[in-house]
Amino acid sequence: MEFSLIESLKIRVGLDSRIHLGIGDDAAIIRPTSGHEILITTDMLLDGVHFLTAEHPLQWIARKCLAVNVSDIAAMGGAPLAAFLSVALPRYWTYSQAEALFQAFAVSASEFQVHIAGGDTTSWNAPLAVNIALYGEVPLGKALRRDAAKIGDIVCVSGALGGSLAGRQFTFQPRVGEARWLREHAQVHAMIDISDGLISDLNHILRASGVAAEIETARVPIAPDARTPGDQRSPLEHALTDGEDFELLWTMPELELNRVRNLPECPVAFHVIGRITEGEGCRLMDEHGRTVHCNTTGYVHRLQQDSSNP
Amino acid sequence: MEFSLIESLKIRVGLDSRIHLGIGDDAAIIRPTSGHEILITTDMLLDGVHFLTAEHPLQWIARKCLAVNVSDIAAMGGAPLAAFLSVALPRYWTYSQAEALFQAFAVSASEFQVHIAGGDTTSWNAPLAVNIALYGEVPLGKALRRDAAKIGDIVCVSGALGGSLAGRQFTFQPRVGEARWLREHAQVHAMIDISDGLISDLNHILRASGVAAEIETARVPIAPDARTPGDQRSPLEHALTDGEDFELLWTMPELELNRVRNLPECPVAFHVIGRITEGEGCRLMDEHGRTVHCNTTGYVHRLQQDSSNP
Repeated sequence: MEFSLIESLKIRVGLDSRIHLGIGDDAAIIRPTSGHEILITTDMLLDGVHFLTAEHPLQWIARKCLAVNVSDIAAMGGAPLAAFLSVALPRYWTYSQAEALFQAFAVSASEFQVHIAGGDTTSWNAPLAVNIALYGEVPLGKALRRDAAKIGDIVCVSGALGGSLAGRQFTFQPRVGEARWLREHAQVHAMIDISDGLISDLNHILRASGVAAEIETARVPIAPDARTPGDQRSPLEHALTDGEDFELLWTMPELELNRVRNLPECPVAFHVIGRITEGEGCRLMDEHGRTVHCNTTGYVHRLQQDSSNP
Repeated sequence: MEFSLIESLKIRVGLDSRIHLGIGDDAAIIRPTSGHEILITTDMLLDGVHFLTAEHPLQWIARKCLAVNVSDIAAMGGAPLAAFLSVALPRYWTYSQAEALFQAFAVSASEFQVHIAGGDTTSWNAPLAVNIALYGEVPLGKALRRDAAKIGDIVCVSGALGGSLAGRQFTFQPRVGEARWLREHAQVHAMIDISDGLISDLNHILRASGVAAEIETARVPIAPDARTPGDQRSPLEHALTDGEDFELLWTMPELELNRVRNLPECPVAFHVIGRITEGEGCRLMDEHGRTVHCNTTGYVHRLQQDSSNP
């Protein structure tokens, strides 16, 4: 099974000239684009944590596994190229279920224009686990990192946040084109994708860059999904802390703002939500400049059945 | 936990100048050695299949997870550089168990001179699952592939086979130096590492190269581990079919044999076990040239609790 499932991807997924050797040997051989550096990211997605095999279609699951990795390459300003897919299949699955999953990966790889260049399949007496390692490229020295935010920068976000659990966690579009456009046309300092939650991921930038931030809560774009009737948490809390939005969060000099927004071909309808300051940590402010207290513990992977912080 | 465990590796594991950015961003940045091509392999190892957390020390488990990937890069003639480590931790583990596992990965990374340049940690209500994606390099055009065996080649193996389940599955030494030496000094045509079993892996070479082979069973080196008193299977059967020996299996022109063996610095005490022929499949012969019938279904991952062929 192992062999034929992986082989099935070899046939269906075409190869890029940079992928000198794909599925079928001890390792893939890639010849990187000259003048580029290599980006590698990896994410393991698990039944009961990141998806539920009992509820979610295999196509959603496969797409999410690939999309979260594509989003990581996007957040570096890069272009994804080759995916390495490891699957631990529950032993009680039928062969056709496994085939359907691999077919779903082929469909998603094609959607994201990446090639599955290697993989590993095993079955075991436990739930489905999927790991994807993704290879991408970015022009030499041009990667957008977390550690480059500067005092005075504005903080920007590429779209509305909160409530991704309602479905956007499966349907989100990794911002590959938008991040690339920003890397090419704007003086972006630091960038990350919002996977753990706005505050949590902003804190990753702040810690890595040794700076602080002030966020104006009234300017945070809130997704319709974040507004659930009867919910004990406010839409703002969802927008600030829900994970898996996969929007881009970046900082750039304030002077860039009008120039970038007025470029006729700007593909990113972004929102300015605050500013980088001296110090450490993130301060939330209302429209009158008063500090807002809010339970902003970002919590990742809300499908987890207990509330322990992993 | 996620953050601090991965961060702990960042501190302990030194960085190579090619690893421009390691753990701590959305993706690692690697600047490959000029004149080289890139090798990427991935393997997922699972509790109950590739190791048993109830029986095997964490250091053995971590070492095996890394070593099987290092062996794949070795079998391409390459040098491993950067590992990307994904861990699904059982939720009932304590923080110190998790810490001990990460410390074990740091120790093994150091043993194999690779750097852990990225990773992902999640906890779930299921057994331990580990995925490693490994980046390596090889001089441009010099990778040793499975599809290059030629009729008339001799078939060689780098060491004794069989019975790895008795312990060698954890203690084997990936043949990085040997494979590199062979790539540099011998005219190797095709190479693979023996992970599924001699016959199984030889068949991978044969199918990829469109050729057949004759193996002289009397010349197959048998490991002491393969000789268990009272075992229903013969030592030869173990040597032919047991997985996880991780020795090198390669083909080269017969003319190379004496030249290579007589090079004073040859680090590989290898065995010639047969010859590549026209046709397809692998024929086993005794010392009189008679066909030997042998149950040669390679079976991988002998820890699996049932006998189904995954």
